[in-house]
Amino acid sequence: MPSALLTDLYELNMAASYLRRGMDQEATFSLFVRRLPPGRGFLVAAGLEPCLGFLEGFRFEEDELTYLGGHLGFSDDTLRAFRDLRFEGDVWAVPEGRIVLANEPLLEITAPIAVAQLVETYLLNVITFQTTIASKAARCRIAANGRDLVDFAFRRTQGVDAAMAVARATAMVGFTATSNVEAARRFDLRVAGTMAHSYVESFPSEKEAFAAFATDFPTRTTFLVDTYDTLNGVRTAIEVIRELGLSDHLGIRLDSGDLDALARGAREILDEAGMPHVRIFASGGLDELDVDRLVRAGAPIDAFGVGTRVGVSADAPYVDSVYKLVEYDGRPVLKLSASKATAPGRKQVFRGSDGDTVALRDEPVPDGHEPLLVPVMRGGHRTGPHRTLETARHLFETDLAHLPEGARRLPDPQPPRARFSETLDTLAGTVRAEMLLRAGVL
Amino acid sequence: MPSALLTDLYELNMAASYLRRGMDQEATFSLFVRRLPPGRGFLVAAGLEPCLGFLEGFRFEEDELTYLGGHLGFSDDTLRAFRDLRFEGDVWAVPEGRIVLANEPLLEITAPIAVAQLVETYLLNVITFQTTIASKAARCRIAANGRDLVDFAFRRTQGVDAAMAVARATAMVGFTATSNVEAARRFDLRVAGTMAHSYVESFPSEKEAFAAFATDFPTRTTFLVDTYDTLNGVRTAIEVIRELGLSDHLGIRLDSGDLDALARGAREILDEAGMPHVRIFASGGLDELDVDRLVRAGAPIDAFGVGTRVGVSADAPYVDSVYKLVEYDGRPVLKLSASKATAPGRKQVFRGSDGDTVALRDEPVPDGHEPLLVPVMRGGHRTGPHRTLETARHLFETDLAHLPEGARRLPDPQPPRARFSETLDTLAGTVRAEMLLRAGVL
Repeated sequence: MPSALLTDLYELNMAASYLRRGMDQEATFSLFVRRLPPGRGFLVAAGLEPCLGFLEGFRFEEDELTYLGGHLGFSDDTLRAFRDLRFEGDVWAVPEGRIVLANEPLLEITAPIAVAQLVETYLLNVITFQTTIASKAARCRIAANGRDLVDFAFRRTQGVDAAMAVARATAMVGFTATSNVEAARRFDLRVAGTMAHSYVESFPSEKEAFAAFATDFPTRTTFLVDTYDTLNGVRTAIEVIRELGLSDHLGIRLDSGDLDALARGAREILDEAGMPHVRIFASGGLDELDVDRLVRAGAPIDAFGVGTRVGVSADAPYVDSVYKLVEYDGRPVLKLSASKATAPGRKQVFRGSDGDTVALRDEPVPDGHEPLLVPVMRGGHRTGPHRTLETARHLFETDLAHLPEGARRLPDPQPPRARFSETLDTLAGTVRAEMLLRAGVL
Repeated sequence: MPSALLTDLYELNMAASYLRRGMDQEATFSLFVRRLPPGRGFLVAAGLEPCLGFLEGFRFEEDELTYLGGHLGFSDDTLRAFRDLRFEGDVWAVPEGRIVLANEPLLEITAPIAVAQLVETYLLNVITFQTTIASKAARCRIAANGRDLVDFAFRRTQGVDAAMAVARATAMVGFTATSNVEAARRFDLRVAGTMAHSYVESFPSEKEAFAAFATDFPTRTTFLVDTYDTLNGVRTAIEVIRELGLSDHLGIRLDSGDLDALARGAREILDEAGMPHVRIFASGGLDELDVDRLVRAGAPIDAFGVGTRVGVSADAPYVDSVYKLVEYDGRPVLKLSASKATAPGRKQVFRGSDGDTVALRDEPVPDGHEPLLVPVMRGGHRTGPHRTLETARHLFETDLAHLPEGARRLPDPQPPRARFSETLDTLAGTVRAEMLLRAGVL
């Protein structure tokens, strides 16, 4: 169970102050992305499931309270108040797998302000990261245009836990397998993998290496052919396939060089050898733009392994996510700073054929529109069973099929913009004026 | 204890094949970074301690073996062999905190090839990530030029565990505190934090918010002054400091706008109010280049909070690390691919006043040179006690003091290049020729 100390000190300071002052009014915080990074036309919501688990189990353990008292100087009164804290609030959220845009709440939480504040760091961290990766991986899906994709990122993700989230997020957007064994076990994913160059090198010859591997895994052999000379490697693989009489699930893997030219060369050699069923697998520092170029060029590649650059979302390793107070004690609030203005109140997003509208939560659903946020927790309990990865994958496929062309574009995407409803616009103006007055600026 | 399934499927395939064939000869793998990303003049070694813990505890648990047999089809013989596997090899490594360059081994592992192969994914992941972050954060240290730095990255690191590693890596290179409470507890770090804009907004006025916070934390108050109007906020903080008679550990925090101009304005107002002891803290999307500009411009900022862009190393979120077989069964090996050539054999790095030399491990230490790699495990056991973060910090400070000017440069750094010793060069040539012969290319 994640610890309640998975938070920034200032959250604890603020919570302590609120509790000491009896400020137990309800606050609503909205978690959203202010703007998309360059190179992104849309986002894919991810990370909700672990957040709900965190909220359900939220509590301070005795050793944690001891640390807060002994090392950080929190008072006994505060520690007593912390000891009793649970998350008993409401959560509305966009289900995992759905496509969202800038300024659309991914999650809104309503709870007494102390606890709503304490969970900020964890929620922001998990949703920001997993949404970042799902969004990057979704672009690979578009690029691959029906070809298989395998998550190869484990060795270079930002930590071991990050690799688990990457395997899950890539599966959510339709990757067919992962190389990550623990993630496959944890999330019930298909796992894929062959051999490394070191395997080939540890035998006296490439052919002996290939024959050994194929003997040991006769029903799932993919030959890594580029340790010495790639097209020679293909011919060696063909010899071994013939000599051992292999027929099932065969492939060769290209991991370096000009993948387009090598794939064409390899395909030709394989076809001439009467082996059209031997698949060509390509990997080696690929991202979605590389995959897109190879697919558009017509390179005869059946499956792509994508690793590091997707697993860390190398061109945009984070999104500009925030967790903003939008209502306190029944009163809508917003942040005034010119460059970081936010909209007040509890929200909903209506999706229609004319695009998305961010509105207040209690506005009526316009005809032909669908609300994106659904209640996922009430009074600290989930409103329904855990949503499966399969459900998320299905939601993603449906949303992807309806995504506008500009958003799908891989180089220079044009993200659609959600508009604000008139009611929300009006409220924002009123609240802004009130707050400026209060701040003595007007 | 980390699971032995924290690995890629291909490692298990290869290990199973080696074990089945009785290939239990010793292999040496070398983990190093092939080239530095643009914007890096040096790297800081980090991640070794968790890797040693992983190696010490390496074993397959019964439920893991059940998964490998039932879901992935590994044979009973293989499962029996996996059950007995332990890491009983030797490890040489560069201690955490030391500055290293491209092509210098961070770690070399010698063990029977199956187990040496199985641990690749974990070692690469952890060392790549932690070295990436320590190297980015070290640039902040140079930029801050003696001013305090606080790790604010938790909310946007790539997962919660990544935040722990970021707190540790930033402390290693001299950050004075972290906002991450769990990391502070785990690694015994100083923790820092104030209030958020939402705190200010949840009171009827900024002044009431400031007074409440200062009443609750009279000995450690930093006022967040930019919720409404920054310089007005500074004046409000001054009023509250006077009215409550505060004197200790006071500060104001600027989190938006033109930090240079606002810091000067705030400093002037504070000094005129007779409060030169109130510190100015700046944050808000900063990286080392921003900090450098502010420090060089003479902005009167005492401490910087740096977050996301350091916590994900936004401009270079990974380094080009590899784990290469360099010796097998007493025979030096290398990878042939033109663009990815590696050097054979167990290595050492000699550091002298004329720079670094990558040599074979058994070459004599040249006069006046220091070897960077030290033995850290023998026969699967640590050679000494756990190295502390304090030791790593000390090593970093010493190496930083000797870092060449070009490597320290923040925009456009010039990374020094390690040369290869004559003996290593000669061996590389010989092995290359032998392998080309073997591959039938010569």
